[in-house]
Amino acid sequence: MKICYLPGDGIGPEIMAQALRVLDVFKKEGLNIELEEALLGGAAVDATGVPYPEATQKAARAADAVLLAAVGGPKWDVLPRPQRPERGLLGIRKDLNLFANLRPAVLYPELANASSLKPEIVAGLDIMIVRELTGDIYFGEPRGISEEGGKRVGRNTMIYNEDEIRRIAHVAFKAAQKRSKKLCSVDKMNVLETTQLWRDVVIEVSKEYPDVELSHMLVDNCAMQLVRAPKQFDVVVTGNMFGDILSDEASMLTGSIGMLPSASLDENNKGMYEPCHGSAPDIAGKNLANPLAMILSVAMMMRYTFANEAAATRIETAVKKVLAAGLRTGDIYEEGTQRVSCSEMGDAVVAAL
Amino acid sequence: MKICYLPGDGIGPEIMAQALRVLDVFKKEGLNIELEEALLGGAAVDATGVPYPEATQKAARAADAVLLAAVGGPKWDVLPRPQRPERGLLGIRKDLNLFANLRPAVLYPELANASSLKPEIVAGLDIMIVRELTGDIYFGEPRGISEEGGKRVGRNTMIYNEDEIRRIAHVAFKAAQKRSKKLCSVDKMNVLETTQLWRDVVIEVSKEYPDVELSHMLVDNCAMQLVRAPKQFDVVVTGNMFGDILSDEASMLTGSIGMLPSASLDENNKGMYEPCHGSAPDIAGKNLANPLAMILSVAMMMRYTFANEAAATRIETAVKKVLAAGLRTGDIYEEGTQRVSCSEMGDAVVAAL
Ligand SMILES: CC(C)[C@H](C(=O)O)[C@@H](O)C(=O)O
Ligand SMILES: CC(C)[C@H](C(=O)O)[C@@H](O)C(=O)O
Repeated sequence: MKICYLPGDGIGPEIMAQALRVLDVFKKEGLNIELEEALLGGAAVDATGVPYPEATQKAARAADAVLLAAVGGPKWDVLPRPQRPERGLLGIRKDLNLFANLRPAVLYPELANASSLKPEIVAGLDIMIVRELTGDIYFGEPRGISEEGGKRVGRNTMIYNEDEIRRIAHVAFKAAQKRSKKLCSVDKMNVLETTQLWRDVVIEVSKEYPDVELSHMLVDNCAMQLVRAPKQFDVVVTGNMFGDILSDEASMLTGSIGMLPSASLDENNKGMYEPCHGSAPDIAGKNLANPLAMILSVAMMMRYTFANEAAATRIETAVKKVLAAGLRTGDIYEEGTQRVSCSEMGDAVVAAL
Repeated sequence: MKICYLPGDGIGPEIMAQALRVLDVFKKEGLNIELEEALLGGAAVDATGVPYPEATQKAARAADAVLLAAVGGPKWDVLPRPQRPERGLLGIRKDLNLFANLRPAVLYPELANASSLKPEIVAGLDIMIVRELTGDIYFGEPRGISEEGGKRVGRNTMIYNEDEIRRIAHVAFKAAQKRSKKLCSVDKMNVLETTQLWRDVVIEVSKEYPDVELSHMLVDNCAMQLVRAPKQFDVVVTGNMFGDILSDEASMLTGSIGMLPSASLDENNKGMYEPCHGSAPDIAGKNLANPLAMILSVAMMMRYTFANEAAATRIETAVKKVLAAGLRTGDIYEEGTQRVSCSEMGDAVVAAL
């Protein structure tokens, strides 16, 4: 298991440290884990001047899986575009061809109160958003700000070809087969031709998955339905831009984004694994961050890249145990539970393992 | 007051009938109201073959304001793109240059239970989303599905020039001045250059409104924050595509989208007024629809196009009265209230007026 890990910025190094302790448990038990650290985001800009340096490219390409904590912070937001931390993130996704972003939105029963939605609306929530990650308006050309007839004009290009749509559709249908066999594809076909093609191709691919029930929803309606009745969804598949918005909306339904991991996979299940949350510069360096999304990202890595379901389940069970024992970092704290630090949460997970 | 009204499809004619009764009250009292009916959407396609026929263009252009009920339905979704009802909607917006879409998301205290969010999260909610309506990826060229190298490719163009951004920014700042003097501009500047220009221009315009506190938020974060803590927002301004998604999400926070009107204005306060909800084909023709969003659209028309604040407030007060009296159409019904039909709700509002 060649793993390249990227602590990144803000709370990144603190939560990564806890994930590494979890990996260490498995290593000591005999799993053949090889670790290599590399720089991404602001940390990389500070050290090398670019957010996705060559050394990181080499390490990430050579690895079977990449663990990423979080990148970004106000310090780097003022830099020219090519040097901003998120360029590093977009760069590594594209470079490693990580086109399939899996973002589960799961409500832990112990944390049900954290949701801003009524308990009956979200109890038992378990959605999987499958977001295309290397195409769409994120990467389309032409793009940029130019001067035309004395006016500044901003331009970006939404673009998908049928192969790009087909391969993410296959990932989504396969995910649906392993779950409740229901897939909802989200588009804006009434306005955008790109997403008309999206819908056409998804329908074509559906013929190969007769056991999966496919439905379609417009993106504006989906943004509403996620609020109104999120449990109507199981697997949702959509493009990069809509997926960015809807997956964040869906994760916030749980009220505890500090708990949610994500996976970004290529065609061969090589993947990058990272929490859904950001680098939280405000609490960085204070040993306050919630390391559970990072630790659950390790579980996803075990499951998707290394097909080690036993290890994945063990990590997830350990996390559930510490929650059941009442341990909480500040972001998920409520009265009657025990407030712990980032490293104490790590201690508890390691002990539960 | 030259008003062109467009009953449209589905429940459209039923709710429009109630709005016309409200107008009739003012007419009888002496307001100089001239009404002209015209066709839009599926109704227009059925009668003329196109969703925004010439006669409607003439009537809409000649009017001071347009009242629109709702367009669309499964019957027309199978037609070629230029004949679909939403083409009529996009056509009239563009033709009349209705670039400023105002969509209030207001929670009526009587309907607080209807929200899927916890009462303390949404009590008193009152957001105004200002959405640009005639630019962005909705209208950008090039667009379409083509064949390239043996593959189908879908393409759309997100585009804004600085003038388009500036004029919607002015509308938003002015709206904020009349409310709590807080404006949040939403973009995706970390990925899309178009929205980097958006942010730049909004900042430039802000210099003319030193009394308004301007903040910026990324669209994915905004989709989250609307769920987590919607009351942090007052006026929100954003582009056409993000506005489509966020305004629907925001209206669903209230749980009663059947209550929400909207305005789409040009530079001279000529406007089109319509409910946020759709044509609800499933309950069409059954006298079950909620006419209140349509009636509140009349109030918005009085306020924005005719600067008749007295009439606007009177209509809004009448609506609050019927709610306080416990009258509810099916969509907002709950135990202990009185279920009424669409026309009975109209009766009650007319009586309250
Ligand atoms: C940081 C940003 C470029 C990124 C995205 O938009 O994809 C983030 O929002 C995400 O969802 O991973
Ligand atoms: C029907 C559709 C074209 C329209 C839009 O996307 O603008 C609708 O969703 C709206 O928000 O008014």
